[in-house]
Amino acid sequence: MLDAKTLCKDLRSIRTQGPLVHSITNFVVMNTTANALLAIGGSPIMAHAAEEMEELTAIVQALVLNIGTLSRPWIESMLLAGRLARSRGVPVVLDPVGAGASRLRTDTALTLLEEVKPAVVRGNASEIMALNGAAGTTKGVDSTSGSDAAADAAHALACRTASVVVVSGATDLITDGTRTVRIAGGSPLLPRITGMGCTASALIGAFVAVNPSPFAAAVHAMAVMDIAAEMAQEKAAGPGTLQLHFLDALYLMNEQDVFSRLPREVR
Amino acid sequence: MLDAKTLCKDLRSIRTQGPLVHSITNFVVMNTTANALLAIGGSPIMAHAAEEMEELTAIVQALVLNIGTLSRPWIESMLLAGRLARSRGVPVVLDPVGAGASRLRTDTALTLLEEVKPAVVRGNASEIMALNGAAGTTKGVDSTSGSDAAADAAHALACRTASVVVVSGATDLITDGTRTVRIAGGSPLLPRITGMGCTASALIGAFVAVNPSPFAAAVHAMAVMDIAAEMAQEKAAGPGTLQLHFLDALYLMNEQDVFSRLPREVR
Amino acid sequence: MLDAKTLCKDLRSIRTQGPLVHSITNFVVMNTTANALLAIGGSPIMAHAAEEMEELTAIVQALVLNIGTLSRPWIESMLLAGRLARSRGVPVVLDPVGAGASRLRTDTALTLLEEVKPAVVRGNASEIMALNGAAGTTKGVDSTSGSDAAADAAHALACRTASVVVVSGATDLITDGTRTVRIAGGSPLLPRITGMGCTASALIGAFVAVNPSPFAAAVHAMAVMDIAAEMAQEKAAGPGTLQLHFLDALYLMNEQDVFSRLPREVR
Repeated sequence: MLDAKTLCKDLRSIRTQGPLVHSITNFVVMNTTANALLAIGGSPIMAHAAEEMEELTAIVQALVLNIGTLSRPWIESMLLAGRLARSRGVPVVLDPVGAGASRLRTDTALTLLEEVKPAVVRGNASEIMALNGAAGTTKGVDSTSGSDAAADAAHALACRTASVVVVSGATDLITDGTRTVRIAGGSPLLPRITGMGCTASALIGAFVAVNPSPFAAAVHAMAVMDIAAEMAQEKAAGPGTLQLHFLDALYLMNEQDVFSRLPREVR
Repeated sequence: MLDAKTLCKDLRSIRTQGPLVHSITNFVVMNTTANALLAIGGSPIMAHAAEEMEELTAIVQALVLNIGTLSRPWIESMLLAGRLARSRGVPVVLDPVGAGASRLRTDTALTLLEEVKPAVVRGNASEIMALNGAAGTTKGVDSTSGSDAAADAAHALACRTASVVVVSGATDLITDGTRTVRIAGGSPLLPRITGMGCTASALIGAFVAVNPSPFAAAVHAMAVMDIAAEMAQEKAAGPGTLQLHFLDALYLMNEQDVFSRLPREVR
Repeated sequence: MLDAKTLCKDLRSIRTQGPLVHSITNFVVMNTTANALLAIGGSPIMAHAAEEMEELTAIVQALVLNIGTLSRPWIESMLLAGRLARSRGVPVVLDPVGAGASRLRTDTALTLLEEVKPAVVRGNASEIMALNGAAGTTKGVDSTSGSDAAADAAHALACRTASVVVVSGATDLITDGTRTVRIAGGSPLLPRITGMGCTASALIGAFVAVNPSPFAAAVHAMAVMDIAAEMAQEKAAGPGTLQLHFLDALYLMNEQDVFSRLPREVR
């Protein structure tokens, strides 16, 4: 499933095409995710005004919807942009930050799932379980479970919504309901940095922009997260310095890095 | 007052319990303060929608209200969350950013003081003086005075509101109206980095979540700021690199660091 | 036009006076631009509530309006603050982020140009061309052209609006319609970091606060961007680490750095 050669092909496509990725995302991670998209070779645009959704969805190659700091006008713009993207065939990535922590978050994520039909949904175990109807499994925006605990929920959610579902954690699980890949790698420091899950969702946006298979795109993006985190870990002393080395790694990552550091698949 | 052993106990509690700290804070520092909370071992959640305040205040261990980039809907959510927190015994930290620079900021801070009864108020000298009725002492969001100039105002404010008041600066002053501690340390670069005062308020949030004494919690948080800044200063060339080493230091800080770098109390 | 001695004079003025620069800017870059202003020696304030525009424009030395993440209430506050600044002689810098990508952005930028009469407008080539009536030249918020392609548009815009127009890119072009300077320098990594154009606009805010000539101020600010980027480039491995070394360089830059690294003027 996870193949270095096809991953490198996507990476080259991103770097040569510079896909325009529109994000309606949360205030905490806007800077971080814009920088990750630029570092990998994409071109981010952040915009939330309803008035410009029509024009922007006409020029972008992917849309990322992230519900981390919701309010009514932003929900309206997410729905509007998401429906426009869907009708135009622009792939959408949904990041259901904090689903399970409040009805507003759970309901918004479920509405977006229903109305927008995202190509990929990426969350932590608690969030994916909440979207599949489990209650009381979240701790704010951090997960209380590992990704394995969410395997059944991810599978069910993928089948029900016809989306690729990604559960990120120490092991990442990617499933389209038929195929499932689990990869392990990255850095144990990632949970101590805000927005690394959101960064994964943003990178999935860049990969779905260049790869017609959302499943392959999601697997590649998660592998790139792991590779960059491993490269960064070697230079970092803690979560602060890791952030910047991570961006450097996204920028510097070459084919040799991909081949030598490809995360291993686990069962 | 400042004791390394009890500080280390709080630090261990934060790292083992991972308290969930809800922040309604300003756009400039959201990323910075979320990362500081994660680095020290806490679990941040940023949310401002009125619809989710009820559910979130039911699951969090502390609430931080920061008025740095106000608007009406955010003020309403701060009041709502603050009142809910108060009624549930969730400790609240108030950061009156820019109080004195505009009536909106001064009035909002005073209303929150009155309605929410925060456990701790942390500001710079100008802000604390403005909350105590002084006029014309601020320069935007930066202070024009040292913390000593605000000693009387801090004392009066603490007595009037029954809050612990922290005035941060080259010397930090912490008072509950009865006891007063002044500690000196940190890095001269801190005023050249945005959001370090807001970071102190966020860290106070983590400490009040684990220590039932707001006074001890505030003293410990300010000491940790100083220790981490001193550790970071040794590796940094300027305010840019200091930011990341500061986060590393919050993460790496061990008991030996606390004992060997405990800031000195001053008169 | 570009003279190291007068640049150093401005730099000293910023560091001794610490001008208060009010920004109504986008969510993505607030932290970055506040840190850049602090690192160079200025004092940033970010505020967007209509209720505090009157008081804030009365105490600040410059106003920066940046349309990167627009919504109606923010547009209203930009207009309000901009008109107040104009009537009080506070110099305004306009950053028309993404002009050309949506009518909302183009129209807002044109309205601000008309109503506020900014001292300086800084954009990339696509944005400046869009403000001068060209269509279809932008790719989201990134430019599809170099600054030379926008030379005629910049000249026409400067003449029409009586503003200094800055087109940033690998070569930066600064014109007031009569005089034109082109300077080359900086780092090829800058386009891979979000908000570096916005940072240039913020720094122009600091320079127009201390130099009565918007043209000289804009030239000096762009030269400082180049010098700091060059200094940072020597220490950085990629776009992540460059960001922090860039802030360090703004803080550390001394007269010798300015003289030895002054960017060259090009034709």
